Amino acid sequence: MRVELLCTGDELVTGLITDTNSTYLEARLFDLGVKVERVVLVGDVRPDITQALLEASSRAEVVVVSGGLGPTADDFTLECAAAAAGVPFEEDARVLGWLQERYAARGLPINPSALRMARIPRGSEPVRNLVGSAPLVILTLGRCRLFFLPGVPREFRALLDGEVLPRIQAELEARPGRVFRAFRLLRTVGLPESEMDLAVAPLASSHPRVVFGFRTHAPENHLKLMAEAPSQTEADGALAAAEVDCRRVLGARVFGADGDEYAPVLLDVLGRAGATLATAESCTGGLIAQWLTAVAGASTVFVGGAVVYSEKMKSAWVGVPPEILERHSAVSSQTAIAMAEGARAACGTTYGLSVTGYAGPGGGTPEDPVGTVYCALAGPDLVTRCERMSFPGDRERVRLFAASHTLEMLRQHLLSAARP
Amino acid sequence: MRVELLCTGDELVTGLITDTNSTYLEARLFDLGVKVERVVLVGDVRPDITQALLEASSRAEVVVVSGGLGPTADDFTLECAAAAAGVPFEEDARVLGWLQERYAARGLPINPSALRMARIPRGSEPVRNLVGSAPLVILTLGRCRLFFLPGVPREFRALLDGEVLPRIQAELEARPGRVFRAFRLLRTVGLPESEMDLAVAPLASSHPRVVFGFRTHAPENHLKLMAEAPSQTEADGALAAAEVDCRRVLGARVFGADGDEYAPVLLDVLGRAGATLATAESCTGGLIAQWLTAVAGASTVFVGGAVVYSEKMKSAWVGVPPEILERHSAVSSQTAIAMAEGARAACGTTYGLSVTGYAGPGGGTPEDPVGTVYCALAGPDLVTRCERMSFPGDRERVRLFAASHTLEMLRQHLLSAARP
Repeated sequence: MRVELLCTGDELVTGLITDTNSTYLEARLFDLGVKVERVVLVGDVRPDITQALLEASSRAEVVVVSGGLGPTADDFTLECAAAAAGVPFEEDARVLGWLQERYAARGLPINPSALRMARIPRGSEPVRNLVGSAPLVILTLGRCRLFFLPGVPREFRALLDGEVLPRIQAELEARPGRVFRAFRLLRTVGLPESEMDLAVAPLASSHPRVVFGFRTHAPENHLKLMAEAPSQTEADGALAAAEVDCRRVLGARVFGADGDEYAPVLLDVLGRAGATLATAESCTGGLIAQWLTAVAGASTVFVGGAVVYSEKMKSAWVGVPPEILERHSAVSSQTAIAMAEGARAACGTTYGLSVTGYAGPGGGTPEDPVGTVYCALAGPDLVTRCERMSFPGDRERVRLFAASHTLEMLRQHLLSAARP
Repeated sequence: MRVELLCTGDELVTGLITDTNSTYLEARLFDLGVKVERVVLVGDVRPDITQALLEASSRAEVVVVSGGLGPTADDFTLECAAAAAGVPFEEDARVLGWLQERYAARGLPINPSALRMARIPRGSEPVRNLVGSAPLVILTLGRCRLFFLPGVPREFRALLDGEVLPRIQAELEARPGRVFRAFRLLRTVGLPESEMDLAVAPLASSHPRVVFGFRTHAPENHLKLMAEAPSQTEADGALAAAEVDCRRVLGARVFGADGDEYAPVLLDVLGRAGATLATAESCTGGLIAQWLTAVAGASTVFVGGAVVYSEKMKSAWVGVPPEILERHSAVSSQTAIAMAEGARAACGTTYGLSVTGYAGPGGGTPEDPVGTVYCALAGPDLVTRCERMSFPGDRERVRLFAASHTLEMLRQHLLSAARP
């Protein structure tokens, strides 16, 4: 089914608000196996809206239109629809009745501007809006069905879920040759997009029913798999087979699927191992602690984190010997190791993690330029491990990747420790 | 100037991500006096992208295209552009050189999929991307100029601000009959939008050339002033007069203007006072430390932050007496005060800040339900002050407002201390 969306409103093209109605509708349609082909946003300009309605209805079988159904002077989407269809724009007795009931129920007289909402294109079908005033309006233009919805997200979603999607679903189910889809997002860290592509690309030919896609969401990279087949069982089967292959080549870099978030996944792995964690952060300045504690219930695993932004506090809070700082400097593997061990000792936790480095833009040395970060992991089942990393990019990016890499050292360790 | 946007990517039409690049660009263009006429989102489908490029370039003078410039198999926007322009799609020596340099700088061999990014439509102009691999590409199609940008928001914004907008602005300035605009964004914290509206609304009638707008950017609220006039001098004058009036009614809640960010402003106030700072965070879990250390040079002011996520660490790192924890609990004004004083003592700083509370969704007591937060400030020139706050919303929101309120206690104290 060819579906397009048209969203109207000056607020959508002047940067005032981000259009989230489309995202919501796209996801609901995708669940039904429909990939939206095009989304168009136009301002409150009559000829632009009329033109966009004509174009979309000439291409698509279904067009969902949002915005411009309200009572104010810049609400004229249905007037444009009447112009596009070449029919009169006139008051509808049913809609008028609904509006009168709605105002009466609130003990208010209906005001003249609200009466604007009773006008619809002749021949269109109004459907009552139970959470607002402007009705859903359904209009057929050539071979296209257009659904007009209010742009207010609450009303948009209620009418979409209650009225529009059930109609689309019924039509899909009545069609022969319907395509079924299944979807999986695999989330990785520590794997550049180009490496992921190289690893996964050879698999595509073995899975002709699956579309492979990539998405960067720093510091993560995601692999999207979408299977299409003539039945849901076949789509699910094709997806499962592709997922097994992809997980095999991506290995432990996959930390989760679909809606999984990194910090809850890591806390869960720690929790299942019965382990606790402490951190000592220099250049990441609390970013790791903040990620972990953003998760409800983190306190069962995370005991404490020291943001040691001066040499003095590296010694005072996590016991880094002043000799080490003097001899090797605050940015060194020796200091990172002492920090991880010191955080673990101070908090009495199973594991200790630390980060120290040059996030930039200032600082750095010829041997350790800006972007150099030492990440360390201490624990009862390993010799304290330190990795020297070199991250490109600005301060924000260096901190982001440094925090991510440090946590990932721990996750990888827990995974390998859990293996028989 | 007729401007349209075209965003490509399956993730934009399947509900995976909301397109925020457009919102960003629309707002920047609006500041230049340009209202975007149409935004089109299409999936990764070659004929759809080619068709959309042809349509947009037939209507608009400028089209900004985002997405599909990367190294993977679903990146083919420039290939579609070459098809739309009827020119060959070929490797460009300049782009190839930039890619080689970028990989060499990271000590990596260039991989074959990255080489895809060196191909551009013949006759187009590549501009180097300093924060990523894929370049900006500028192509003229008929009377339309098309700018192709990577869809990754960080790269999109850097190339937009650094390369695309200056070119558009230069073209606008060369046109006759233009309207001159002047802008000011006043940034506040601790002031609800409705209160700001009540304070500022009476001023609007005295400033007919100025449009007043409000923007919520939790935990901040911003007042946007836009003056329009036939000359730049008049626009600047009208803006300056409105700004003086607004600053008068908003007072010290205004922490900055335009691009000012809260943390750098606070660090600057501290630095000018010759003061240093330490923090002890419980429910905000490092959020305050992370905000401050995200600013380059924070180490001259910020000495250390303890994320004390257990009673034990509240005593060990910032010396909260166990009797206080036992008698008043970890969420109490007594604990908050001991934490602020303890952080200050441990780090030897001028000021100490602390936060402890119930961020939710679990926890809380009948007297101190979820959302209750105690924020404290200790320093040499005041009796340690604690404020009990009650923040609505989910865990993320409670943490955000708790961190913001705690920092703002310090900023307000420094402002009043600096007054004669």
